[in-house]
Amino acid sequence: MPRYRITVEYDGTGFVGWQRQENGPSVQAAIEDAIAAFGGAATVLHGAGRTDSGVHALGQVAHFDLDRDFPPDTVRDALNFHLGTAPVSVLDAAYAEPDFHARFSARGRVYLYRILDRRAPAALDRDRVWRVPTRLDADAMHAAAQRLVGKHDFTSFRAQSCQANSPVKTLDALRVARAGAEIHVTAKARSFLHNQVRILTGSLKLVGDGKWDADDIAAALAARDRAAAGPTAPPHGLYLVEVTY
Amino acid sequence: MPRYRITVEYDGTGFVGWQRQENGPSVQAAIEDAIAAFGGAATVLHGAGRTDSGVHALGQVAHFDLDRDFPPDTVRDALNFHLGTAPVSVLDAAYAEPDFHARFSARGRVYLYRILDRRAPAALDRDRVWRVPTRLDADAMHAAAQRLVGKHDFTSFRAQSCQANSPVKTLDALRVARAGAEIHVTAKARSFLHNQVRILTGSLKLVGDGKWDADDIAAALAARDRAAAGPTAPPHGLYLVEVTY
Repeated sequence: MPRYRITVEYDGTGFVGWQRQENGPSVQAAIEDAIAAFGGAATVLHGAGRTDSGVHALGQVAHFDLDRDFPPDTVRDALNFHLGTAPVSVLDAAYAEPDFHARFSARGRVYLYRILDRRAPAALDRDRVWRVPTRLDADAMHAAAQRLVGKHDFTSFRAQSCQANSPVKTLDALRVARAGAEIHVTAKARSFLHNQVRILTGSLKLVGDGKWDADDIAAALAARDRAAAGPTAPPHGLYLVEVTY
Repeated sequence: MPRYRITVEYDGTGFVGWQRQENGPSVQAAIEDAIAAFGGAATVLHGAGRTDSGVHALGQVAHFDLDRDFPPDTVRDALNFHLGTAPVSVLDAAYAEPDFHARFSARGRVYLYRILDRRAPAALDRDRVWRVPTRLDADAMHAAAQRLVGKHDFTSFRAQSCQANSPVKTLDALRVARAGAEIHVTAKARSFLHNQVRILTGSLKLVGDGKWDADDIAAALAARDRAAAGPTAPPHGLYLVEVTY
């Protein structure tokens, strides 16, 4: 009963999120259905990160077991065939150790948040970036972001619905840099709280606007109160880029 | 009666193309409707390039006249407001000279063709790139492309429906280079024949595959016969990047 690890790209726009839910199509269900169509039996797919509706992935990782042994490249091609027109693509499939778990074995996750700071709306990347109408100061955002790096109580930066036992997380890196017409926020940590990257981004955007400075970011962190941080940035600018093991 | 020049970005996916047609929504009609909603009177919008259905633009240029004089930034913002959810964005608006014509005054056009050469389908960029399953040799494509640069009879590389009077065009530049996971084909000329960039790309792809070499490209050009060139690459990888005056 081989275990497979897959790396998956998807457009989160039309999905209720990664996780299978009653109220609409999920990425997990799309892939589980493809596995069942190919492998002939239902199996549970375990993902590394439970992305929300509208959030994209360039490199989500998931694992599942099959009753029969197929070469990994065959598994990748067969899943892509059965995914049909769903905006989900299996980039890679590989054998995994029997004790490998996409979620619990993960040692790090990298998220990217794309902001397009220009007056005109986004046409081509409408569901791919957060378009804000005023030019942001990327250097000021980056400097303020460094106040958030390290091990902290991130209560101010998690959704009130967050189910994590502890609000204490170690943020390994939080970088803000201009990338052509866009601002890219890159966040690295072993794991994140619910909406953490989006609330971090929504807060740093206030710095980019000149409404906040780095001390306001530090004060928001110290407050341990969701109301002290900035708004939650919209989901469609967020990408799960990579999961490391 | 001021004349305005606008620079426009659009997602060509849901449109029948730039030009107003009976059989579906066009970019031209979307913008003309926005101008009428804002300016209060119907006007004709003249575009620099008549992109086909599915073809995108990062910098299409168009001009139109208004009965009343509004500041260009007001025109840009008002058009974007009235465009609503259409995937069309006016990046810039400026006053133009009375004899400026977006199409006939143009001195150069730049097109980009994006190829994603990987086994797995494109999920996020499904309507944005031509995904080909085998890895292409960008250097060989670039070398072969240089055989096409200059003034030639491009009969082999134009659609049979092309209505241009002459098949002779001067291709100023045709560059092929790897850009991360993609291959980018960039073409520059004063003007292009119908489907020229797509047929050039479809032919160079045969070189990238190893099926053709540079001599085959030269022979296709010399044949002056559409059947001698490669297939027409699909529209959704093509972008009108810039129009120069």
